[in-house]
Amino acid sequence: MKAEILTIGDELLRGEIVDSNKAFLSERLLGLDIETHYQTSVRDDPADMTDAFLRAAGRADVVLVSGGLGPTRDDLTAEVLARSFGRELVLDEAALATIQAFFRSVGREMAPNNAKQALFPQGALVLPNPIGTAPGFRLDVEGSSFFCLPGVPREMMRMLDEQVLPRLARQPGAAGPGGPVLRAALLRTFGIGESNLDAELKDVAASGDVTLGFRTSFPENVLRPVARAATAEEARAKLAQVCQVIRERLGPLVYGEGEESLPALVVRLLRERGRSLAVAESCTGGLLAQLITDVPGASEGFRGGIVAYANEAKRELLDVPGELLERHGAVSEEVARAMAEGVRRRLGADLGVAATGISGPGGGSAEKPVGLVHLALSGPEGGHADHFVFPLDRMRHRQLTAWTALDWVRRALLGFELVGPTLLRRRGR
Amino acid sequence: MKAEILTIGDELLRGEIVDSNKAFLSERLLGLDIETHYQTSVRDDPADMTDAFLRAAGRADVVLVSGGLGPTRDDLTAEVLARSFGRELVLDEAALATIQAFFRSVGREMAPNNAKQALFPQGALVLPNPIGTAPGFRLDVEGSSFFCLPGVPREMMRMLDEQVLPRLARQPGAAGPGGPVLRAALLRTFGIGESNLDAELKDVAASGDVTLGFRTSFPENVLRPVARAATAEEARAKLAQVCQVIRERLGPLVYGEGEESLPALVVRLLRERGRSLAVAESCTGGLLAQLITDVPGASEGFRGGIVAYANEAKRELLDVPGELLERHGAVSEEVARAMAEGVRRRLGADLGVAATGISGPGGGSAEKPVGLVHLALSGPEGGHADHFVFPLDRMRHRQLTAWTALDWVRRALLGFELVGPTLLRRRGR
Repeated sequence: MKAEILTIGDELLRGEIVDSNKAFLSERLLGLDIETHYQTSVRDDPADMTDAFLRAAGRADVVLVSGGLGPTRDDLTAEVLARSFGRELVLDEAALATIQAFFRSVGREMAPNNAKQALFPQGALVLPNPIGTAPGFRLDVEGSSFFCLPGVPREMMRMLDEQVLPRLARQPGAAGPGGPVLRAALLRTFGIGESNLDAELKDVAASGDVTLGFRTSFPENVLRPVARAATAEEARAKLAQVCQVIRERLGPLVYGEGEESLPALVVRLLRERGRSLAVAESCTGGLLAQLITDVPGASEGFRGGIVAYANEAKRELLDVPGELLERHGAVSEEVARAMAEGVRRRLGADLGVAATGISGPGGGSAEKPVGLVHLALSGPEGGHADHFVFPLDRMRHRQLTAWTALDWVRRALLGFELVGPTLLRRRGR
Repeated sequence: MKAEILTIGDELLRGEIVDSNKAFLSERLLGLDIETHYQTSVRDDPADMTDAFLRAAGRADVVLVSGGLGPTRDDLTAEVLARSFGRELVLDEAALATIQAFFRSVGREMAPNNAKQALFPQGALVLPNPIGTAPGFRLDVEGSSFFCLPGVPREMMRMLDEQVLPRLARQPGAAGPGGPVLRAALLRTFGIGESNLDAELKDVAASGDVTLGFRTSFPENVLRPVARAATAEEARAKLAQVCQVIRERLGPLVYGEGEESLPALVVRLLRERGRSLAVAESCTGGLLAQLITDVPGASEGFRGGIVAYANEAKRELLDVPGELLERHGAVSEEVARAMAEGVRRRLGADLGVAATGISGPGGGSAEKPVGLVHLALSGPEGGHADHFVFPLDRMRHRQLTAWTALDWVRRALLGFELVGPTLLRRRGR
């Protein structure tokens, strides 16, 4: 089964946004053994859209379209697709009622142009959008199935998983017993860079029926082993074997498998072990607390955090002695330790973690360069501190610092050694 | 002049990487008034590549190709492009010498397969690659100019700017006095939804030589008016006029123009007005502090923040009276006001802002539903508080809450009324 991905929008063709939908859609299709042969993007232009629709119908069995389902004048997918294949545009009363109900539920009047979102090509199957006003639809024409989804990534992703993939999985040719079957896993690593991973695992994917993909989503690196076999059972067995080799090779650098992120893992470990956490942040400026509280249910183990940007805040809210600040400076092991202990005590938590550093671009000196960061962890069994120089821009310095702190909490809860990212130069004393 | 972007690589079609090259290339072309009509991606497959090359030649004046120039077996761009248009593949001695010199300069032996990178279609103009082994080339066929560049982003970007754009700028039809000239602006709005914006501005883009694009990058909506005229001066004048109409229509809902984000604007306003800010967060969990400290130089006006997730934290760190917490609950106007005043006093700031709410998915009740949030601002001239129900998932609830708090700070510093996002229902008392 051949697939084509078609994304629509002036903003794409003007280069205003990087289109991540195509990669997401292709990756998910591959999970059903459906290979994407073409990815195409066109403007909100009826002639170009028509051309793209006709071409896609001529060369692909399944066409995933994203974009152009909104309420504005430049949202033309339903209208142009209908016209391209000689269909009428018809009002779907049920879809209209759903859109009206959505607006009522949020206490708003439906704007007249939203009614347009209930118009579909004749013969289309409406695909409900549980989290937005733009329903999608499926239209089968000339031997191809078009699935039209919103361009908003979170709506598209949810509808793909709930509405599109289950239908495709039932279609002959997808994941069928005759063709080669693929099984893939995600192994999430933190603390080792992509080229080191590649060197470390060079021989793992040497067999030909196993490939090993790398995806860097800074600051983590995700491994994607894919096993191919004649049957699902064989593919699963091969995949399990590869995953085991990788885990043995990398040890605690692999923090998890599948969808669970490092912050979600930390929240789960705190809950399972009945421990509580508080954070004291200087350079990360709230990012560490935010990563933790992004996870639903974080309040069970997370007491709170203090973003102590100014020195007075470190004294007043974290009980860092003024003398330490004067003698060693705010970016020092002594102050990091005092911050971790202070926040742990102030918030009555089992674990306190602190980060103080220079994320740049300004604020560095010869002795304390931009990129320097001190981390400290304080717990019932005592404390630990270390420092690193991350030669990165401000954003990535903050991200890597916050993730290293999270990884320390994970390692402390699981009894692993507290180490920093191995790839990055430790600053000599 | 019509452009097409063509990127080549199995990794793209498998969804292993998000292709950011297309957006970069399109944006740079637009800088020369060259519009991209198509973006296409195909696998490293000779048949699909040939098909894509022939189609591109048939519909575009300039085709930018990225990928497939490396030394491995699946790098096929030069070979397939030559065959597609009946050209021989010929060795370029100068390019070969350059590749050999590159390897000598890094102390390595050239692998035999690297010699392949010196083979080009007959008639091609070699484009040197100053930072890699893969040279690019230009080939003019059937009325189209193909520019073939490496897929590695930094090599592609450098060669585009140094080798391709200067050549295109000299081509008739690009930025020339005869052709239509485009000028675009970005107007950033907060607090009004996309369909309301569209309704409000329906007549603004009615003239045909002005288009108005909408880009939602939750929780803000960015307007992108594009004006087209015979000369740059006329286009600029039209654009200025459209921007003025939009600004008059929307008032303080337009918070800025160009690249400056709302957090960056708030940091700048604090600095320019010599004011300081402290934040007290419950439901936003550090996000508000993080948005502010993402901005370099935030420390000038930002004192710090307190993430008071637990009630003890609100009492201990923000001096919220236990009696208020008991009588009104943590999510209440009284507690929000006390948090804003507490953080302002504790951190010695001019302005204190606080958010306490229920971001979900759990934690709601009939009286205090998921989505409810209380905001408060405390300043030298007194305080202000209000509450909203944002019917959004956890992530977006937190984002919209943090942005509304930032917008209040902006409005307070500029003397505007403190209002919430107009689209969302205010909860009746």
